[in-house]
Amino acid sequence: MEISRLDSRLPSPMPTTTTQSPSTLKAVMERARQQVDSALDRYLPAVEPEGQSACPARLAEAMRYSVQAGGKRLRPVLALLAAKACGASEADAMASACALEMVHTYSLIHDDLPAMDDDDLRRGRPTCHKAFDEATAILAGDALLTLAFEIVAKDTHPAPAAVRCIQILAEASGPMGMVGGQMADLEAEGRTDGTVERLEAIHRRKTGALLMAPLCMGAAVAQASVEVTQGLERYGRSIGLAFQIIDDLLDVQGDEAKLGKRAQKDSDLGKWTYPGLLGIQASRDKAQALADDAVKALAPLGEKAAVLRDLAWTLLERDR
Amino acid sequence: MEISRLDSRLPSPMPTTTTQSPSTLKAVMERARQQVDSALDRYLPAVEPEGQSACPARLAEAMRYSVQAGGKRLRPVLALLAAKACGASEADAMASACALEMVHTYSLIHDDLPAMDDDDLRRGRPTCHKAFDEATAILAGDALLTLAFEIVAKDTHPAPAAVRCIQILAEASGPMGMVGGQMADLEAEGRTDGTVERLEAIHRRKTGALLMAPLCMGAAVAQASVEVTQGLERYGRSIGLAFQIIDDLLDVQGDEAKLGKRAQKDSDLGKWTYPGLLGIQASRDKAQALADDAVKALAPLGEKAAVLRDLAWTLLERDR
Repeated sequence: MEISRLDSRLPSPMPTTTTQSPSTLKAVMERARQQVDSALDRYLPAVEPEGQSACPARLAEAMRYSVQAGGKRLRPVLALLAAKACGASEADAMASACALEMVHTYSLIHDDLPAMDDDDLRRGRPTCHKAFDEATAILAGDALLTLAFEIVAKDTHPAPAAVRCIQILAEASGPMGMVGGQMADLEAEGRTDGTVERLEAIHRRKTGALLMAPLCMGAAVAQASVEVTQGLERYGRSIGLAFQIIDDLLDVQGDEAKLGKRAQKDSDLGKWTYPGLLGIQASRDKAQALADDAVKALAPLGEKAAVLRDLAWTLLERDR
Repeated sequence: MEISRLDSRLPSPMPTTTTQSPSTLKAVMERARQQVDSALDRYLPAVEPEGQSACPARLAEAMRYSVQAGGKRLRPVLALLAAKACGASEADAMASACALEMVHTYSLIHDDLPAMDDDDLRRGRPTCHKAFDEATAILAGDALLTLAFEIVAKDTHPAPAAVRCIQILAEASGPMGMVGGQMADLEAEGRTDGTVERLEAIHRRKTGALLMAPLCMGAAVAQASVEVTQGLERYGRSIGLAFQIIDDLLDVQGDEAKLGKRAQKDSDLGKWTYPGLLGIQASRDKAQALADDAVKALAPLGEKAAVLRDLAWTLLERDR
């Protein structure tokens, strides 16, 4: 059974108070995605002949190859939506949005390396180290991580908002966040003492932190109140975990062609997964409960959070 | 002939106006190095049992192993000295100082990887991927780079100074700076069309940018005038290049035991070097001219820059 049919077996995920039809949500997200893609294109170094730019052409190519491989742009879109829900403009949050995508992309490049997950395929195309080489992939990842902080520092105003965004991004992606989660994940491989608590501790860092960060950064650029910021943080934490559970379910049951990567990869590697530890139905129930919690957390924002609310439900239905 | 004897064959490198005896300079630098080491120890994640910290113990160990391998701490010491010369305190610049050492260390960890320079030995000890493993080394590097930006954002005040420091650090270490230089260096390997101009373009980015950054960050935390900032920037650019030339000379002629790494490694790899392209004597002359230029650039700071001035001369005498 496909995850996309999950909603038909559960109470209707579309609450009666929604102001956005699914097609409106899709249009809003698609518009945001396009704005992010244009901004990323402007922020990434140009591919120019030797001597024309301080950035070697091969490095610029590898950075662009990985960032411009498509993808949902979920993290940057979340940052734009959060900023807008708090009354800021999309332009205010664009540097943070692009920085989030750069950090996400760098993490994929490094995770795919032979010494890590050793993946040949990502988003349906050869991974960066396959399309280029390992050294270039390591450096392209390093360059994207560094550039992320540069653009937030350069284009976020006023300065205290920039500093806050940089702190959020660094904490979410550093040794206590994403990188720590990746390390814990590698260490857990093949271990048989997996518990839901341990798995959650890994995912809170490995993927959750960088899904929560967009909400906090959106609030920071808008200089939102503590109450609103905390609401968005809780929303981000809940959808982040829900997103990971769906990811695990897709890995067990997903369609390889739609995913653009090898299905059942995690279970083949002996990695802990939610379906593996909890069972498929309990995993689905948990994802649903988290989406419910995310929507509740948006209360302080009222109707300004309609798009974020609808997005929480939609995440449950994704099939890639 | 050893580099440490270079001074005996050139006009006295110690100008008559110096206020610091060599032993005073050594004491000042040693004190700064100790302050940096203490601060780094505070900033690095603690090694704690599973579940006690969000940072996995193995990751914290690898980060500490590489950062605490000794080293001259030249970059952080330069940042402290520059800040002090501009009237700020060492405490004001400590986050920037530690961030510079973290970025420097991450670059060494990644450069040593099998896919890059493939080095087994660094500062006389096994490299990070030899002491741990490749995946841990990649992640430890990523974590140090991220933590660098986090600590500057957290502990540099006021916010505009923090933003400026982050911009300087990111530009110096990103695709237009250090990472770009490393890429260009890898691409140049084995190519026979080396010129001094091309080599300088590589080194300006690969090592020069991160030696110039401490001076600019020191000026930024002190919110120094444009004139003083530009003077320190020029000083940093000149000593950065001089440092690299001496490095190349040491690679040709240095003592392996003192260097803590394999001598003649660069020439074995077919890398372009200053002695290789210019000859040994012309390389020495160039390093001396750059040190002279660095000292001239300190003019706007007057006697407050005495330590930096003496340091420029001392760089010529280093033997590791």
